[in-house]
Amino acid sequence: MNYCNQCGAPVEVRIPPGDSLPRHVCQRCATVHYQNPKLVIGCIAEWQGDILLCRRAIEPRYGLWTLPAGFMENGESTTQAALRETLEEACARIEIDDLFTLVNVPYINQVHLFYRGRLLDTDFAAGVESLETVLFSEADIPWQELAFRTVALSLKAYFSDRRAARFAFHEYDLRPPTGY
Amino acid sequence: MNYCNQCGAPVEVRIPPGDSLPRHVCQRCATVHYQNPKLVIGCIAEWQGDILLCRRAIEPRYGLWTLPAGFMENGESTTQAALRETLEEACARIEIDDLFTLVNVPYINQVHLFYRGRLLDTDFAAGVESLETVLFSEADIPWQELAFRTVALSLKAYFSDRRAARFAFHEYDLRPPTGY
Repeated sequence: MNYCNQCGAPVEVRIPPGDSLPRHVCQRCATVHYQNPKLVIGCIAEWQGDILLCRRAIEPRYGLWTLPAGFMENGESTTQAALRETLEEACARIEIDDLFTLVNVPYINQVHLFYRGRLLDTDFAAGVESLETVLFSEADIPWQELAFRTVALSLKAYFSDRRAARFAFHEYDLRPPTGY
Repeated sequence: MNYCNQCGAPVEVRIPPGDSLPRHVCQRCATVHYQNPKLVIGCIAEWQGDILLCRRAIEPRYGLWTLPAGFMENGESTTQAALRETLEEACARIEIDDLFTLVNVPYINQVHLFYRGRLLDTDFAAGVESLETVLFSEADIPWQELAFRTVALSLKAYFSDRRAARFAFHEYDLRPPTGY
């Protein structure tokens, strides 16, 4: 961040009065520009035991598989975000059940939430950000070609809980991958 | 938002190619400035059955009571945010248990998370943003003087679950108050 989005003057990085962390502060109008983590929200959507995955048509991780998920937008709720992302990326209509995982990814300032859900029908298709959208059985999940660790963690917990016939809520903190 | 924080040129509101929502887009460098919901994170901290509340020394809701809570910062996890806010606002050291409530407040673009926790000792005090910090029994909670509905909802669910001797995770969607 170089300029104030309110008045257009240059910003400097300093600790504002009464604060404890360095912020981007406008040198002219003194507006403090806070930067905070973003929520990424998705769904583990099941149909007759299979799970809906999308193959990414965009970077990062073009060509790899993911759960339908994306950045939460202003003005919506977390479940609305999960419904919208599943519709956008997989053209799929779902019913949302409980929140299933919360994964902290502090080194990129993100918090990922995955809900459990159920497909209402099989009229799904690849959305504009997906190359293809496929139902996978547990045995066929492409573990080596998953796009994100938050997705792998959530799927592992899902199948583990499903075998135990009891879904709990899970929270994880991810550390940076080697070489990050 | 009036100016691009990258190059300082004016922004305009339009739907970028491949997007579906209006965004602030720089007229010179074409940077898209996304705006997303913020996480507010706090803790219901218990000591021998009593709950720690802080009386606010800042606006909004100066003088009213709240759970220790605040905006999650970049680079931290959700539990680290709960620990930090409890230390900052109540000078209190706690142990964090499970996530207890998620409250969507879409009309102000916020998601509030409250953890359950336990005070490690009673050496707490009012932080700089608090007028006083007090342990309240359930019977003495100042329900009419609580600062935020997300706090009231979380406390009600907490006492209800505690009476049932079973803490579950709860999710709520708040609608705008009358006159908002």
